[in-house]
Amino acid sequence: MIRAMVHQVREVFIYLFLAVFYKATGTVKPYWRPGSNLSPDNDRAYCLSWRLGVETNNVRAWRTVPSECKEYIENYITRGQYYHDLNFITNQISSYADEIALSNDGMDAWILDIDDTCISNIIYYRGKRYGCDPYDPLGFKAWAMKGECSAVPFMLGLFDRLVQSGFKVILLTGRDEETLGQATTDNLLSQGFIGYERIIFRTTAYKGQKAVTFKSEIRKQLVEEGYRIWGNVGDQWSDLQGEFTGNRTFKLPNPMYFVP
Amino acid sequence: MIRAMVHQVREVFIYLFLAVFYKATGTVKPYWRPGSNLSPDNDRAYCLSWRLGVETNNVRAWRTVPSECKEYIENYITRGQYYHDLNFITNQISSYADEIALSNDGMDAWILDIDDTCISNIIYYRGKRYGCDPYDPLGFKAWAMKGECSAVPFMLGLFDRLVQSGFKVILLTGRDEETLGQATTDNLLSQGFIGYERIIFRTTAYKGQKAVTFKSEIRKQLVEEGYRIWGNVGDQWSDLQGEFTGNRTFKLPNPMYFVP
Repeated sequence: MIRAMVHQVREVFIYLFLAVFYKATGTVKPYWRPGSNLSPDNDRAYCLSWRLGVETNNVRAWRTVPSECKEYIENYITRGQYYHDLNFITNQISSYADEIALSNDGMDAWILDIDDTCISNIIYYRGKRYGCDPYDPLGFKAWAMKGECSAVPFMLGLFDRLVQSGFKVILLTGRDEETLGQATTDNLLSQGFIGYERIIFRTTAYKGQKAVTFKSEIRKQLVEEGYRIWGNVGDQWSDLQGEFTGNRTFKLPNPMYFVP
Repeated sequence: MIRAMVHQVREVFIYLFLAVFYKATGTVKPYWRPGSNLSPDNDRAYCLSWRLGVETNNVRAWRTVPSECKEYIENYITRGQYYHDLNFITNQISSYADEIALSNDGMDAWILDIDDTCISNIIYYRGKRYGCDPYDPLGFKAWAMKGECSAVPFMLGLFDRLVQSGFKVILLTGRDEETLGQATTDNLLSQGFIGYERIIFRTTAYKGQKAVTFKSEIRKQLVEEGYRIWGNVGDQWSDLQGEFTGNRTFKLPNPMYFVP
């Protein structure tokens, strides 16, 4: 605690010194102006840093969105930037997919996560203050069983494109097969996700395992079957890390929850 | 081309249908309002998406910042958000470091990259339109030889904290030892980076290798020497991927250039 304070004081002195130094010499300007343009909106700056931290996997094992960021996240999701981000990233994925020369053995695969990758839970999370409320397993299960998730913007277009290009699209989800298998399959169908090669749920054998362990194991099995995993798309880093992650991974934005 | 257009038209129809559907039923509102609040500032939305894409490693092997984002990146760097992001992430790193129980064998290590991790090239990149101009190896070398890089905000504080906690801090850089070794060591000293365990430059043996290959090889050697790499901090994904990446990696922001 005291050590932290000493460091903070020291840091303040360093910046004061630098400010005076730059002022005195007039030769080199500092490139940062801490807090300028941000003082009226410090929450926004903090929440933007928080979101960057989450999306880069710097912030891990977080349980809830900081409550001061509820409005920021709501605006991010509903006022267009989330939509822009999805448009941008699906264009990136398409460009990469277009460069791949497929062989004709039918083993060129692509892995997509389901929740907030193919179909969206945002309407549910709106009721959970966009992630400011803690995870509610029963509430989420009740929501998922309704099968009312809408397609994540641009992802159906990407899905169709991959299928029509000849990729074997494999949907891989941590959702429990027994309780959510049918509702999920129906939900995907109603949203137009037609033509995937396989859908893999979590069976009892993998119950309680971390997503990164379960998904690594499934991907290993796919590779052993002979599949070449060209792309792997998910909204959680646990979809994209571990083993046999694929030739290239793509992280979709999700500032609402963290799956270990 | 035609396929892409058909998909785009199809996507537009889906959203038109959804819009009409939501309007007609009145039960479920769509959660996104594409472009709302963003129309006067579409470049900003695009550049924010681009920056997120870069920082999450979705956009790879890019050569220059899109020219329409020059002002956006300049504002990001100079008007406080970059500073906020660094403050946020160094706090995250400190919190993680505080949780580690160090052994007393002197083998608890921490790896820090140098360029735009310990010391900053932003003053140089200001002259290169914050990365809108292509990489200029001779220009960069001339800049680095001057030894005038300032410390990246908050990173000296983090460095001192790690050293004083008992971590062996190892600086690992792709800078060429022969041409830039002395200038870099002097620059670090003048900025206050004192007390590191070792500084490792790129020697002729590793010339021409990708950063991810070179750095993986060095980390492998360190692990073979018995070091436990607790943390690994860099501004490039090539600092943080490959083998022996460390127990936890931290990506600092850098929207100005990409090192493969």
